[in-house]
Amino acid sequence: MTPVTLVQRLLDGVGEIGADAPGITRDAYGRGENAAHALIAEAGQALGMSAHVDAGANLTLRWAAAEPVAAPVLIGSHLDSVVQGGNFDGAAGVIAGLGVVAALQAAGVRPRRDIEVLALRCEEAVWFGLGLIGSRCMLGRLPPSALELRHARSGLTLAESILACGGNPDTLREGRPLRAPAAIGAYLEAHIEQAPQLVEMAAPIGICLANPGNLRHPFIRISGEDAHTGLPHRFRRDAALAGADLALALEAMWLEEEAQGRPMAVTIGRFHTPAARHSLTAVSGEFEMSLDLRGYDVGHLARLEARLGEIVAAVAARRGVSITLGSRSTAAPGLMDAGLIAAMERAARGLGLTAPRLNSPGSHDANNFAASGVPTGMILVRNRNGSHNPHEAMDTADLMAAVDTLTGILGDGGSGGG
Amino acid sequence: MTPVTLVQRLLDGVGEIGADAPGITRDAYGRGENAAHALIAEAGQALGMSAHVDAGANLTLRWAAAEPVAAPVLIGSHLDSVVQGGNFDGAAGVIAGLGVVAALQAAGVRPRRDIEVLALRCEEAVWFGLGLIGSRCMLGRLPPSALELRHARSGLTLAESILACGGNPDTLREGRPLRAPAAIGAYLEAHIEQAPQLVEMAAPIGICLANPGNLRHPFIRISGEDAHTGLPHRFRRDAALAGADLALALEAMWLEEEAQGRPMAVTIGRFHTPAARHSLTAVSGEFEMSLDLRGYDVGHLARLEARLGEIVAAVAARRGVSITLGSRSTAAPGLMDAGLIAAMERAARGLGLTAPRLNSPGSHDANNFAASGVPTGMILVRNRNGSHNPHEAMDTADLMAAVDTLTGILGDGGSGGG
Repeated sequence: MTPVTLVQRLLDGVGEIGADAPGITRDAYGRGENAAHALIAEAGQALGMSAHVDAGANLTLRWAAAEPVAAPVLIGSHLDSVVQGGNFDGAAGVIAGLGVVAALQAAGVRPRRDIEVLALRCEEAVWFGLGLIGSRCMLGRLPPSALELRHARSGLTLAESILACGGNPDTLREGRPLRAPAAIGAYLEAHIEQAPQLVEMAAPIGICLANPGNLRHPFIRISGEDAHTGLPHRFRRDAALAGADLALALEAMWLEEEAQGRPMAVTIGRFHTPAARHSLTAVSGEFEMSLDLRGYDVGHLARLEARLGEIVAAVAARRGVSITLGSRSTAAPGLMDAGLIAAMERAARGLGLTAPRLNSPGSHDANNFAASGVPTGMILVRNRNGSHNPHEAMDTADLMAAVDTLTGILGDGGSGGG
Repeated sequence: MTPVTLVQRLLDGVGEIGADAPGITRDAYGRGENAAHALIAEAGQALGMSAHVDAGANLTLRWAAAEPVAAPVLIGSHLDSVVQGGNFDGAAGVIAGLGVVAALQAAGVRPRRDIEVLALRCEEAVWFGLGLIGSRCMLGRLPPSALELRHARSGLTLAESILACGGNPDTLREGRPLRAPAAIGAYLEAHIEQAPQLVEMAAPIGICLANPGNLRHPFIRISGEDAHTGLPHRFRRDAALAGADLALALEAMWLEEEAQGRPMAVTIGRFHTPAARHSLTAVSGEFEMSLDLRGYDVGHLARLEARLGEIVAAVAARRGVSITLGSRSTAAPGLMDAGLIAAMERAARGLGLTAPRLNSPGSHDANNFAASGVPTGMILVRNRNGSHNPHEAMDTADLMAAVDTLTGILGDGGSGGG
């Protein structure tokens, strides 16, 4: 089977597993992700790779070097999706890893260090209100309290979910990395771009400079006072309008920051009056919303968090409501390795590919490797219509441009960049 | 039984029927409203009144004059509530009607025209997305298409609901009044105030000058595009932020109008991203909201509707979304009768009561009687904490001030004001 045939077959296979019209749902630590892990494990074993499941239930497929001369190179991403998302966010990167191994084998290259393809668990934050869980587990970056978070669909805790999928939550409670970062030669990831910048630039792939980190408050609550439609404005403590005020104030902050050259993003995915108490003729005293704030630099994120606090206090004061930010999680920004950036650019140029440098719009498992000191590189793949929706659209030819670029940097006897 | 004992017993009785901690739920054309109708019918019959159910399933209790010298006086309100509302919105007015009859009987007065106490069905708009249904039915003001609306809880159509409660939807389809307005001498209603103006003024009751009319769009939909958290701002078509923008623009219109001396109100009770697709990490492409716009004058409501159209178009254009206002209903404002206002003021003064004139914050069944040309009067009763919430708080002593005032205008041989 040629590399492109393998890649296409696996893309189709994970698509069938996740089919949930009009989109794709592969539930993390659930049926969808488990079935995709099984498909990828089988494909890796067919390439002569050994399969290993770690305490976080991550899958590692190893193509061992006969006499390793350096630390292993990891190529990874994730197989879970959001609810009714697309087929490529995550899965394309895992499949690209197997494509690289197939391409090296087709070229008769025998690696001089181990090449490992990783399927990391539960990258999407929708399942437990916390993302990047598999890579957090692997690198000892999972907050211990996260093991008690509950799955949005099954209701199981994360500890129970990990156990059910062959992992070991007791090991994770110790909080130590499952892999010593210093013993990892490099981490490489291909991932669809989650914005249409490469479409605008007519480039099949881009070389990533940095991934954003984030600050998340999944369950912000605003409490005012329920009231009748007839209540004059001066008496109202309308939680829904306070939510509207807060959302637009955060959007205004975003636009100001961008105008001053500090890239970031604000996303409010959940934004709602409580469904159980909906009334056409009552002012809502309760409102709920989520917040995802992202930035590319730890200092900038800290300043944004301070501004968030000021904005929340101002909205609460002018609207006569209380605002509780609730649980908080953070993910570190991920700066890519300069040597790997240069090596990938050389490889792409050698293949005649247009591969501009750009910041990633999304956070990825690569963030955790970069934050742990592992030399990390990412290739973004052109994708129409964004991601986290059923209309994601990546051409397999563009993914193969990423496969060929990664193969290029690993093909010089497997020593790679970085 | 003294009038105050009867009133207290009935207030407690409808409270027990509606108990739904932490509030009160009496579902219209359902178990709660039906049980309250039965309780009130029994109490009226114990006062020697005859009970009659009309085609809209409204209950009329008649205390017949031996030799009527004028058209009957109707005293009414409603027994349904919102979901987890309070005990007094509506029920207090029906019970006050029986209190008036009991007080006249205790004083040995025999009426010279029929006095009828009405329990009108489904005043609250939460059940079918349309309010004042019982009084609409009685006065031929129900849009025929409304019979196909579905009950929020049972799922039955309004026609099916009316039939199940002893009414006759076929009669309603003819669209004629069930009672000729010209044959009604007066319509009187006591209702808790739905704002704390009487609390501020330290007055037990107020004499209503006008009730607001309304324009309602229960199901406004905003469609943008689902997208990933990483999508730059310039590409986003965020339906939730468009909803926030629309809500704050309507609030700004309200404040401008009030500042220019044109009283009105804007209420957005439902305001939400779709629960089935909630995600922390996705921009929402869909948003839903309700709108209740109220004003005290038909011309003003028409101008507000024109401004609503302009605001919706501006938000849709600047946010790159489409906004569908969806189904629309209106209720006419209700101007109270000058003769009844004067008569109630005289009666209250005679009782030593403070009874300021004021506009009603809420619409009531009285609107339909006033709009049909029936001389209409309303007394608002002091009430802490607003209505449509579990914390409504009316003192029975304040309701008795309304009972005594109405008894006063009907006690001069039953000829009344108007």
